[in-house]
Amino acid sequence: MTALSECEINVVEMGGVEPNPKLSFVREAVKVARENKVQMILAVGGGSVLDSSKYTAAGALMDCDPWDFPMRKATVQKALPVGCILTIAAAGSEMSSSAVISNTELNMKRGYNSDFNRCKFAIMNPELTYTVSKYQTACGVVDIMAHTMERYFMPCEPTDLTDRIAESVMKATISAGATLMENPEDYDARANMMWASSLSHNDLTGCGRENALPVHQLEHALSGEYDQIAHGAGLAVLFPAWAKYIYKYNPARFAQFARRVWDCTQADDEEAAIFGIEKMAEYFKSLGMPSALSDFGLDRSCIDTLSDLCTFGRQRSVKSYIDMDFEVIKAIFEMCL
Amino acid sequence: MTALSECEINVVEMGGVEPNPKLSFVREAVKVARENKVQMILAVGGGSVLDSSKYTAAGALMDCDPWDFPMRKATVQKALPVGCILTIAAAGSEMSSSAVISNTELNMKRGYNSDFNRCKFAIMNPELTYTVSKYQTACGVVDIMAHTMERYFMPCEPTDLTDRIAESVMKATISAGATLMENPEDYDARANMMWASSLSHNDLTGCGRENALPVHQLEHALSGEYDQIAHGAGLAVLFPAWAKYIYKYNPARFAQFARRVWDCTQADDEEAAIFGIEKMAEYFKSLGMPSALSDFGLDRSCIDTLSDLCTFGRQRSVKSYIDMDFEVIKAIFEMCL
Repeated sequence: MTALSECEINVVEMGGVEPNPKLSFVREAVKVARENKVQMILAVGGGSVLDSSKYTAAGALMDCDPWDFPMRKATVQKALPVGCILTIAAAGSEMSSSAVISNTELNMKRGYNSDFNRCKFAIMNPELTYTVSKYQTACGVVDIMAHTMERYFMPCEPTDLTDRIAESVMKATISAGATLMENPEDYDARANMMWASSLSHNDLTGCGRENALPVHQLEHALSGEYDQIAHGAGLAVLFPAWAKYIYKYNPARFAQFARRVWDCTQADDEEAAIFGIEKMAEYFKSLGMPSALSDFGLDRSCIDTLSDLCTFGRQRSVKSYIDMDFEVIKAIFEMCL
Repeated sequence: MTALSECEINVVEMGGVEPNPKLSFVREAVKVARENKVQMILAVGGGSVLDSSKYTAAGALMDCDPWDFPMRKATVQKALPVGCILTIAAAGSEMSSSAVISNTELNMKRGYNSDFNRCKFAIMNPELTYTVSKYQTACGVVDIMAHTMERYFMPCEPTDLTDRIAESVMKATISAGATLMENPEDYDARANMMWASSLSHNDLTGCGRENALPVHQLEHALSGEYDQIAHGAGLAVLFPAWAKYIYKYNPARFAQFARRVWDCTQADDEEAAIFGIEKMAEYFKSLGMPSALSDFGLDRSCIDTLSDLCTFGRQRSVKSYIDMDFEVIKAIFEMCL
């Protein structure tokens, strides 16, 4: 604030962004932006602050409700410029085209992609993340891994260079995450994790590949319904279950993941695939992440609701190596019990 | 030309760019650009066309001779926008901030970096490179490897993620190059090589590292003096010699290169380093690249001149793990005989 005031920049400050950012906050922020004729938004925070800023930036200039964007009722044609000072490495929103918001009235968490969602700049100082808690750091590691793995595990033509870059992002993130559980102020680990967060979601690791995030779709149902669940923690539970269900439709791909990312030496693809998935699950656990829905206090009774939410009331399936319909999604949630 | 004419875009065509692009051409092109009030330059070709276009783009708007830019007599403050249709994967100029030009009157090849040298767009269709000859394809592979290795081998703080991405670019390039010697129309190999050319020189592989290209400095002396030498071919001779001279100042780094890029399993750093350098030299040879100055018809008599050119008449040293002065550079050239 001092720096901005020294530059004689008028600032309207708006705090109070919550995790799993809320549409209600965005609607309020849009009003504030319009009333004060705000010219740019400086997002100081992580994914929730960024995504709230992106919705506000478009909402301030577009003549509709911000919820229309993820509902595909309106296409963003203009938006205020958004800049960012990043304080947590996780969502990769600082370089991504995506933005997610929760509508608590409808218990729905939804997102949309647009190049208007790209920040004009992002100031990324790893030292600003020294005080991120171990739990939130671990959630960030899982989110970075998920953004990378989900692109990696889409059905695609071969993409050798993109594969190798994705494997690089994963290996560097795994190493940084382990280091940070021991020493949260390791500059190099914080720097590598911060840069990995951007590269995992700015489409570099999706070059030549389809950009869909099937496990994120499952997780949005989960933390959309249960607001207390951190996005990364939800992914830590869902990703191994999803992988155990899906790997059999492409064991060779999961075997490559196991060999290159987890140093698996098993020759058999099926065995290697299982090895890699187990290593991933063990790693998430080693970071203190939950490994089952019961860790969130949930039991079997939530499964139908979550599967219904994820398929928009059985209205859609989610693309992966197979089309995941209600029954498949239900089976995956059941594997998380 | 048909597409441009259908869009009613007036085009002044200017062909005749030579390899190791010439200042004389640029001076002519600047005149043409000014006379025709050209508004943008579309570079259709590879590094030589791109670099000529970059000098022309700045020369057209700046009130000085284009040679002033690499001579540090003028700083580029404005330039016409440059777009690109890439027809050879090699120099990475389509995404880089650098541009190199040869002054044949002075037998000098020099470059400079500026964000004005960044293309506004690059259309990269791998199929356009199917007809690139095996020799030029191999030169491209060497240039991509060199851009990546030179950043990789600069003295720096640890950069785990950048290291791994650089290793990814190298592994993908090595694989694509080998494939293309057998099948020049392998789409995936052409695509991976094209994307590697951009990533090798757009600073992604230099993130957190110092951006200096010591072996390129040696090579600019060589192909600046002997115009018939292709840049990549010059690098293929110089890189192994440089590495054999320099590795002893950081064997651990060269050992990492050997283990991660060339699958070396030797435990001893010194032995691993030598193994990696030999593998690299063998690989360049396997692509049909020259391995000694004698392959260009040169002998010992050129060495003093080249060392003199590279040090600007003993006026500078070139930074590497050690400062390379006239005597070091001479020793490296001698290792190329």
